[in-house]
Amino acid sequence: MKATLMYAAGDVRVEEIPDPVLKEPTDAIVRVVRSCICGSDLHPYHSMKVATHGQTMGHEFIGVVEDTGAEVTSIRKGDFVIAPFAVSDGTCEFCREGLHTSCLHGGFWNDGDLGTQGGQAEAVRVPLADGTLVAVPGITEDSPLLASLLTLSDVYGTGWHAARAAGVTGGDTVAVIGDGAVGLMAVLAAKQLGAEQIILMGRHQARTDLGREYGATDVVAERGEEGIAKVRDLAGGRGVRKVLEAVGHLPAYDQALGVVRDGGTIARVGVPQYSEAQLGWRFFGRNLTLTGGPAPARAYIEPLLPGVLDGSVNPGKVFDRTIEIDQTPEGYAAMDVREALKVMIRL
Amino acid sequence: MKATLMYAAGDVRVEEIPDPVLKEPTDAIVRVVRSCICGSDLHPYHSMKVATHGQTMGHEFIGVVEDTGAEVTSIRKGDFVIAPFAVSDGTCEFCREGLHTSCLHGGFWNDGDLGTQGGQAEAVRVPLADGTLVAVPGITEDSPLLASLLTLSDVYGTGWHAARAAGVTGGDTVAVIGDGAVGLMAVLAAKQLGAEQIILMGRHQARTDLGREYGATDVVAERGEEGIAKVRDLAGGRGVRKVLEAVGHLPAYDQALGVVRDGGTIARVGVPQYSEAQLGWRFFGRNLTLTGGPAPARAYIEPLLPGVLDGSVNPGKVFDRTIEIDQTPEGYAAMDVREALKVMIRL
Repeated sequence: MKATLMYAAGDVRVEEIPDPVLKEPTDAIVRVVRSCICGSDLHPYHSMKVATHGQTMGHEFIGVVEDTGAEVTSIRKGDFVIAPFAVSDGTCEFCREGLHTSCLHGGFWNDGDLGTQGGQAEAVRVPLADGTLVAVPGITEDSPLLASLLTLSDVYGTGWHAARAAGVTGGDTVAVIGDGAVGLMAVLAAKQLGAEQIILMGRHQARTDLGREYGATDVVAERGEEGIAKVRDLAGGRGVRKVLEAVGHLPAYDQALGVVRDGGTIARVGVPQYSEAQLGWRFFGRNLTLTGGPAPARAYIEPLLPGVLDGSVNPGKVFDRTIEIDQTPEGYAAMDVREALKVMIRL
Repeated sequence: MKATLMYAAGDVRVEEIPDPVLKEPTDAIVRVVRSCICGSDLHPYHSMKVATHGQTMGHEFIGVVEDTGAEVTSIRKGDFVIAPFAVSDGTCEFCREGLHTSCLHGGFWNDGDLGTQGGQAEAVRVPLADGTLVAVPGITEDSPLLASLLTLSDVYGTGWHAARAAGVTGGDTVAVIGDGAVGLMAVLAAKQLGAEQIILMGRHQARTDLGREYGATDVVAERGEEGIAKVRDLAGGRGVRKVLEAVGHLPAYDQALGVVRDGGTIARVGVPQYSEAQLGWRFFGRNLTLTGGPAPARAYIEPLLPGVLDGSVNPGKVFDRTIEIDQTPEGYAAMDVREALKVMIRL
C-alpha cells in the first residue's frame, strides 16, 4: 500500500510499504478514507535530520474497519471510525479521568514502542482498537461531513482542549494566538463555551476571516509589542483573562505573557518547540497560570460529535485543499509556504 | 529610630534612621510591636551586590497605629494592626478580585516607587492605610497570639495561597516541597482544606516534626531522583495531584515536575531565583498546570484570622527564636545556617 514517509527536513515521499496486519488480538485494521497534514507535521519538516529509513507520517484519519483482532468487542468490520491522534486503552486510571494522552498502555502514531505507523497512508493498524477508535453509525464514504469528522482526530479537539483547560466560560474575554487550524478551532471552542470577546492574533486574512466566521470578535494582525498593546487595549487595558496559545514557538509564548491579565491563564496547545522559557518574576509576580498540553482528543469525540452531525458547527472548513495520496509532498510544501491552511488527503 | 539595613550579601546592620512621618493623607504611621525575618530575605543575603546606601529590610510586621493621615477612615490611632507584605488600595479591580499583589496603586515594602521602608524597624509609614492594614480589636502588646498574628503578614497567607491556588480539596494527595516556614504553613493549609495525604519533602527533623504536627502524613528526607521515587511510591506510583513548591530554587521546581502526577498542578509560592525553566515536552506532554505567585496575603487575613484568635490553629509555632532589634544581624546568620527556622524580632 501507499504511505507517506519523511526522510529529512523538506524531504517527504510517497512509497509502497507492506499492508498492515493484525499483531495483537486488541488490534484493528482501518482502511483510511481521509487523512490530513497537521501544523505539527511541519516541525520535523523544518528540522528533521537526514535518515536512512524514512518515518511514516500522519496522526489524523478516519476510515472503515477492515479487520479486528479476537479481543476487539466494540468495533466491527465495516464500521466507519474516527481515530484520535493518540492510542489509548480507555480503561486505565488516566483514560477514566479523560486524560487519554497519558494512557498507561497507549502512545502515538509512528511510535516505536507501540509499533504504530503514521496515518497518511492507505491503511493503518490500530492498537487497543476498543479504546482508541470511535465508530460513527450511518456515515458513508461520500458523506459531506467527512471533513468535519476528520477534525475530531485532532484540531477541533485540540482547540476545544485549549478553551476548556483555560476554563473559558460565559462572558469571558479570550485571546487566541495563531490563525492556523488549531487557533481557528480554539476560536470556535471559545465561542461555544460562551466567550463574549474573542481576539484572534493572526495576519493571514483568509484565515482570520474564517476565524471571524467561527466567532472572533476582533483580529489583531500586529505582532510583538505592537500586537500586545493592541490586544490589551481591546480588552480594556489590563489584558485578557484567558489566552489560548496555538502555535508552539517561543515568540508565541512571550506574546501570551504580554497579553494576559494579572491572575489570568495561558493554555498552550501548540507543541512547544523549546525546552525552557520565562518562569521567573515576570510570570510568578503576576500570579499567572499555565496549563494545556496535548489534547485528549479521544475524550472529546463523543461530546463534540453531535454538533458536527447536526451541522450546527462546521469545523471542516479549515481544510482549504484536498489532494490524493501521491500529492502528499506537494501538500506539505503548500502548508509550509502557507498557500494552504490545512490539506486533506483523499484515499 | 532603629532599622535594619542590608549593605551587601551577608552584611546586615542596625542603624539609626529618621522616624517616619506622614507624607500622604492616606498614610498611617505604625509603631512596630513584632517583625521577623523571611526566608526570602535570605535571597539578597546571599546575592546582594555591595551598595553605598543600605536598603531597609523586612516586609512582615504587626503593631500599633501612632498617627493617620486626614483621609484614613477605617484605621485609628491606637488600633492594633496586621500589615501584609504588600501595600494595596483595597478598591482597584485587582483588589476587588482578591489579587492585592497586583493592586494598581500598591507595591511592596522597601519599594522605591512607593517610597516605603522595610518593616524590620521600630516604626513604618504605611501608604494606603485603609486598604493595606487590618485592625484586630482586643489585641494588646502582651497577647500570647502575637506570633500567630504575625504569620498573617506573610507565611501563613503564603502557605494558604499555595494550597488554594493548587485547588487542594477534600481527599487530595499533596506534596509540599520545602520545610521552611512557608512549606510548613502550606502543610497546615492543605490540612485545613481537607487533604488526606500530605507528603512533606524536607530533611531538618525539628522542622518536619512540626510539619507532622501541622498535618503532614509522610516525610521524605531524600532529594533528587531518590526523593522523587519515594514520593511517587507513597502516592501510589503515579505521583501526586497537587504539589506546593515553597522554596524558589530551580532544583525545587525540577523536584515538583518529578513528583507531580500527569494532569496535576504545581503551585509555586517560593520566589523563583531563576528566570527560565523547563516548559517543553516534559511539562507540556503531561498536561501539567503551573500556578501560584506572591500571595495576596491581605485577602487572606480576614478568613484566616478567626482560627488564630480562637486558637484552633497555631501558625506562630514556626517562630523558634525571638531577638531584639539590635540582634537582627545575628538573626539573619542563624536563619542562613538553619540554626533557626524563623526569627521573630521583638520591639
